[in-house]
Amino acid sequence: MTVKATSKTDVLIVGAGPAGLMLALWLARLGVDARIVDKRTDKVYSGQADGFQIRSLEILDSFGIAQRIWNESNHMVEVCFWNPDETGRICRDSRVVNGKAGLSRFHEVVLHQGRAETFFLDAIRDSYGPQQPTRGEPKAGGQAGKTHGDTSSGPDVGGQQQPRQVSVERRVMPTSLTIDEDAAAEDNRDSYPVTVALRHLSENEATPTQMLSNVQDGLFRSNLSPPDGVDPSSATIPEGIEEVVQCKYVVGCDGAHSWTRKALGPEYEMVGEMTDYIWGVLDIVPITDFPDIRNRTMIHSADNGSMMVIPRENRLVRLYIQLTEVSVGGGRVDRSQIKPDMILSAAKKIMHPYKIDYHYCDWWTAYQIGQRVGKHFSKLNRVFLAGDAVHTHSPKAGQGMNVSMQDTFNLGWKLGLVCKGVAKPSILSTYEFERKPIANQLIAFDHRFSRLFSGRPVKDILDETGVSMGEFGAAFRQSHMQFTTAVGIKYSPNMLVVGGDDEEDKKDDTGSDHKQAPSPAAACVPGMRFASHQVLRHSDARPWQLHHKMQSDGRFRLVVFGGHVSSQRDLQRADELGDWLVSHLLPKLPALAVMPGTTNLHGGGRPGHGFQPEQPPSILDVLLVYHGQENISVGEHLSFHSAYQPFDPKLGHDYDKVFVDRPSHHNGNGDAYNAYGVDQYKGAIVGVRPDGVVGLAVGLDKESWVEVENWLEGILCKAK
Amino acid sequence: MTVKATSKTDVLIVGAGPAGLMLALWLARLGVDARIVDKRTDKVYSGQADGFQIRSLEILDSFGIAQRIWNESNHMVEVCFWNPDETGRICRDSRVVNGKAGLSRFHEVVLHQGRAETFFLDAIRDSYGPQQPTRGEPKAGGQAGKTHGDTSSGPDVGGQQQPRQVSVERRVMPTSLTIDEDAAAEDNRDSYPVTVALRHLSENEATPTQMLSNVQDGLFRSNLSPPDGVDPSSATIPEGIEEVVQCKYVVGCDGAHSWTRKALGPEYEMVGEMTDYIWGVLDIVPITDFPDIRNRTMIHSADNGSMMVIPRENRLVRLYIQLTEVSVGGGRVDRSQIKPDMILSAAKKIMHPYKIDYHYCDWWTAYQIGQRVGKHFSKLNRVFLAGDAVHTHSPKAGQGMNVSMQDTFNLGWKLGLVCKGVAKPSILSTYEFERKPIANQLIAFDHRFSRLFSGRPVKDILDETGVSMGEFGAAFRQSHMQFTTAVGIKYSPNMLVVGGDDEEDKKDDTGSDHKQAPSPAAACVPGMRFASHQVLRHSDARPWQLHHKMQSDGRFRLVVFGGHVSSQRDLQRADELGDWLVSHLLPKLPALAVMPGTTNLHGGGRPGHGFQPEQPPSILDVLLVYHGQENISVGEHLSFHSAYQPFDPKLGHDYDKVFVDRPSHHNGNGDAYNAYGVDQYKGAIVGVRPDGVVGLAVGLDKESWVEVENWLEGILCKAK
Repeated sequence: MTVKATSKTDVLIVGAGPAGLMLALWLARLGVDARIVDKRTDKVYSGQADGFQIRSLEILDSFGIAQRIWNESNHMVEVCFWNPDETGRICRDSRVVNGKAGLSRFHEVVLHQGRAETFFLDAIRDSYGPQQPTRGEPKAGGQAGKTHGDTSSGPDVGGQQQPRQVSVERRVMPTSLTIDEDAAAEDNRDSYPVTVALRHLSENEATPTQMLSNVQDGLFRSNLSPPDGVDPSSATIPEGIEEVVQCKYVVGCDGAHSWTRKALGPEYEMVGEMTDYIWGVLDIVPITDFPDIRNRTMIHSADNGSMMVIPRENRLVRLYIQLTEVSVGGGRVDRSQIKPDMILSAAKKIMHPYKIDYHYCDWWTAYQIGQRVGKHFSKLNRVFLAGDAVHTHSPKAGQGMNVSMQDTFNLGWKLGLVCKGVAKPSILSTYEFERKPIANQLIAFDHRFSRLFSGRPVKDILDETGVSMGEFGAAFRQSHMQFTTAVGIKYSPNMLVVGGDDEEDKKDDTGSDHKQAPSPAAACVPGMRFASHQVLRHSDARPWQLHHKMQSDGRFRLVVFGGHVSSQRDLQRADELGDWLVSHLLPKLPALAVMPGTTNLHGGGRPGHGFQPEQPPSILDVLLVYHGQENISVGEHLSFHSAYQPFDPKLGHDYDKVFVDRPSHHNGNGDAYNAYGVDQYKGAIVGVRPDGVVGLAVGLDKESWVEVENWLEGILCKAK
Repeated sequence: MTVKATSKTDVLIVGAGPAGLMLALWLARLGVDARIVDKRTDKVYSGQADGFQIRSLEILDSFGIAQRIWNESNHMVEVCFWNPDETGRICRDSRVVNGKAGLSRFHEVVLHQGRAETFFLDAIRDSYGPQQPTRGEPKAGGQAGKTHGDTSSGPDVGGQQQPRQVSVERRVMPTSLTIDEDAAAEDNRDSYPVTVALRHLSENEATPTQMLSNVQDGLFRSNLSPPDGVDPSSATIPEGIEEVVQCKYVVGCDGAHSWTRKALGPEYEMVGEMTDYIWGVLDIVPITDFPDIRNRTMIHSADNGSMMVIPRENRLVRLYIQLTEVSVGGGRVDRSQIKPDMILSAAKKIMHPYKIDYHYCDWWTAYQIGQRVGKHFSKLNRVFLAGDAVHTHSPKAGQGMNVSMQDTFNLGWKLGLVCKGVAKPSILSTYEFERKPIANQLIAFDHRFSRLFSGRPVKDILDETGVSMGEFGAAFRQSHMQFTTAVGIKYSPNMLVVGGDDEEDKKDDTGSDHKQAPSPAAACVPGMRFASHQVLRHSDARPWQLHHKMQSDGRFRLVVFGGHVSSQRDLQRADELGDWLVSHLLPKLPALAVMPGTTNLHGGGRPGHGFQPEQPPSILDVLLVYHGQENISVGEHLSFHSAYQPFDPKLGHDYDKVFVDRPSHHNGNGDAYNAYGVDQYKGAIVGVRPDGVVGLAVGLDKESWVEVENWLEGILCKAK
């Protein structure tokens, strides 16, 4: 083997789908030296995933991406259930809100996955600020020789050199992976224990079948098709285009047929089962008289199978159509049986007496329902698996892309802060601890839901093999309260999550707290996401979603609910906490520079055009939210402790850290204290992780300050 | 004179500031062959205008631009008045909402003019759809030889060839303008009666002083400085870089020292007067203890003059500071007297006892208040003047850029539809008829407001030369009800505006109607802007601002308030109107192709990626808004007349034309029938011009149909 290039990187990401791109975006935003490779020539242009769930939109909004998705997507506001009547004719059983109003400022929307990938690529590039000359996407073909061999650095960012840019290297795939287990176990920040060989593919090798046919089909990547990866044991490296990369960490985001997972050995195989249910998918511009074609609609026909209508952007509609006439016989289906006209024919039978036809077909595929989950999500906390590489299931609940992005949203900040030397490497073990239970819940849900959906509707009370439509509807609605929105998921207590009795809380996923001692912030449950509610900025009365002041920039946040600071008692209490923060806690914590693309999102200018302070800010960002009683912010002369209104000799005061809970002039009342479950006289402190998950919720008393200190000291390195 | 190139264009725009770019955007969206030239090398990067008023934001939203401004801008939610107390110390007199809540979904925001220019340039380019390879701004230097000499055309758009792209040609200015008055008067669509010679400047000639100094100053373009245009009588055309352009129409958007205005002769001079009030402007990152530094604040000091605080994007604040110590003596001030430290020194005296200082200064300028307005806005309806070329005044009410953009928003669709051959040339006379009264109102307002603001506060009731702070505050608040927001402006009846007694309506600008006969849509006043309220799309219950279904694409719109279509009576009434529209009116009206960038804005996909129908749509777009009584849209089997749910054999039904007034699941209740003043049982038809101005408001009865027909036939050419 002729080795032409040897290089180093902190993190190597294998696979540039939504999971890999989410991770790359995190690392770009944190200024970490990372690479992301993908064997395909280009991103996905049609078909694939399309559902964006509430929590995913909140997460994407924390990177400034959600608004583009929100604008372009189709919004699924209502959901319709069509069932057979007593004559067997389908009719609308009910039409209700899709999900539960009030869970979030977002609700479920549908947009082609390829657009999200574009937005990820834009956001990764923009992380480095607008001064970079390269505005287009990187050209196909590896950039290792150029970008990563380039030792020149960007402009000065908050007192540190700007890191080299992360950008997707396409037509590149790994061919071998080895771990130096001794070096991996060491808590040595400078060791690169994982070695990966990369092979640069020719254009033919990298072009998927999708691009060669006229109407694009997705069979090549569906789970009906054979694995499309190159077997790690058989790959050969042509002379001249191989590269050996020494990595601190490697993350496999390379899909259901993950090369990385296979390279880790047989004990990483996924376990689960296939069903006999076969479904086809059509992305079409429908010509139909079906009244609910622009609503999310579930149709159970009497005898011809089930169907789901997902209205998409433009005039597209995605139809999931059960193929009851494809024979399976306990094994894998013969994919050559399935063609679009066969899928359409099945749809016509299910929709009868309504008509359905099309002139334009954008994409189609077929799949056999199965549920599988990985046994391990990590090897030695040096190689990680995420997304489809560790969980696959049926697509109809719109979970795949969402759970995959949420996997790497959980992992990204942990890896990034460890690489930056500000967090302890031991936090990496929380990735599998937190995400594997979510994958198991997902598989269990999908198992139940797909059987209810694929089953034949019950005909009468004597029909024991049929599925009750009432049970199906209830299961669907319940899922919206639970984890399909992902706002209801909860991580069990660990070094990042203080408190919360896991067994107790499992019974209630709506955000209320069942512990014995009442929490000072009852709706801020450790292990669950910190919700967003509207508050007004003290300095100018502008309404903000609190999430907009909690961008994904790697920072931990203390949200100090200070009570009525217009009263002397509460102001003094807030000032005492401010003294302790400024004189005791903040000096112990490390700093973390802000990448240019992270600043000033959501109003107040555009990314990269702020005036930079001379010193990078602390990794702990303190936000004061007080309770206002009047329609106008408190008096002329109220000044806040410098913990809440930091002063820079060149930039003056930072007026963007103090907020008030009171009605706005134009946007109603956020009623934030009530919404967070905080008593307006007692107040509270809520610690929020960089991924928006509540780490702890304590009172304003001095005993609680110690809890905050212990929580952060368990996670973070000392200030240098 | 050696003429190297002779070319033709339908519209030549001189000046690429906000007025010129607004016009260019209209013409790009309509697919008109147009050129826009500017003598500067580049767009504005700092200083200049920054306020975006409500109506401007609504207009920019109709082109898909407003959201970018809304996101990046600073929002001015409250306004503070600081006056001297009895000891002469300034103190906060009041803090109130800035403007009136509920006028619009927007309120006043502040962002540097250069960003708006960037968004205009992006929107002009995107009008032609995403398939164009050129993504960057055009390079400096004329493109006449390339872009406009290029005979190749873009892809097919809705059955017609795509026009050549409009893009700004920089470092180009006109040197002569002649009108063939005989040809101009003819109603001949193929005549090019205006001939303009263009000169291509060298880089030195085109670079303004602004770019040469370290801290950028705006004196070069303020009205203290001499005109920066080249005198039309003295310009010489160097050999080899001149061009003669034959134009159907020319529009001068070239600022207060307009070359175009001068070229039209002395009878086009502006009339008005200068005052003795001198003001300085600083764009700084302030270091201050003044509590309202992040609010729009008016300070009247006892003896040191007045000041206005305009908080900007990022940490910038613009300060308008009265310079009481600069001597004027009835003439023009000597600009060499004024420096930033002198302006800061004046600010310190006004703000005392609060401190104000800065480390960063982004821009500064000074100006002498004056008000001037042009006598004529057009010559023969072949050459037009717009923006600062016909009205200049003081900047503090944030009107200049707004009124300028609104001038060309009024003119653009008229010119465009005439050039496309779908509207009668006689509509062009309505530009001056409609816009000149607005300029006169603006000047009168500014005259009053600037004197109240620059005057010394009254000390006691015997102080006859002082200004009453009560009167000042009342004038400021009243202006928000009137035309500074521009939602209250009203055009008098003309061929585009049917009905409305002008003298009566002048007394009330809030939108209510004082005519004798009650209007069927009381809050839709002919001559005023059609407001936006939330309705739900019938097909999927998604809430929309009705404005989002009324994009600026050149189309007239009939908003049919059909009442309760769930009742047989109202459904039949709507169907009868539908029959008349489809069989009688629509066939008589011309078609108008949709440019790719105009489709699918605000959800439902991205521009240019829709599936195009084979035939261009009618210039009349019909929207049905019915009144719903339940929380869920009406029944399973309700189908709408093809006038409201058009059918295309390849694309199926268009589900985007029928809306219901009922509460939404996530976004409250638009209460549209009430908000538009329409009786839910009687209904109404409102005709809306392409610029969003109400053209007529009539009932649903058959007599009213004739009024609709007459209105459109007076404006539009017959279908070909």
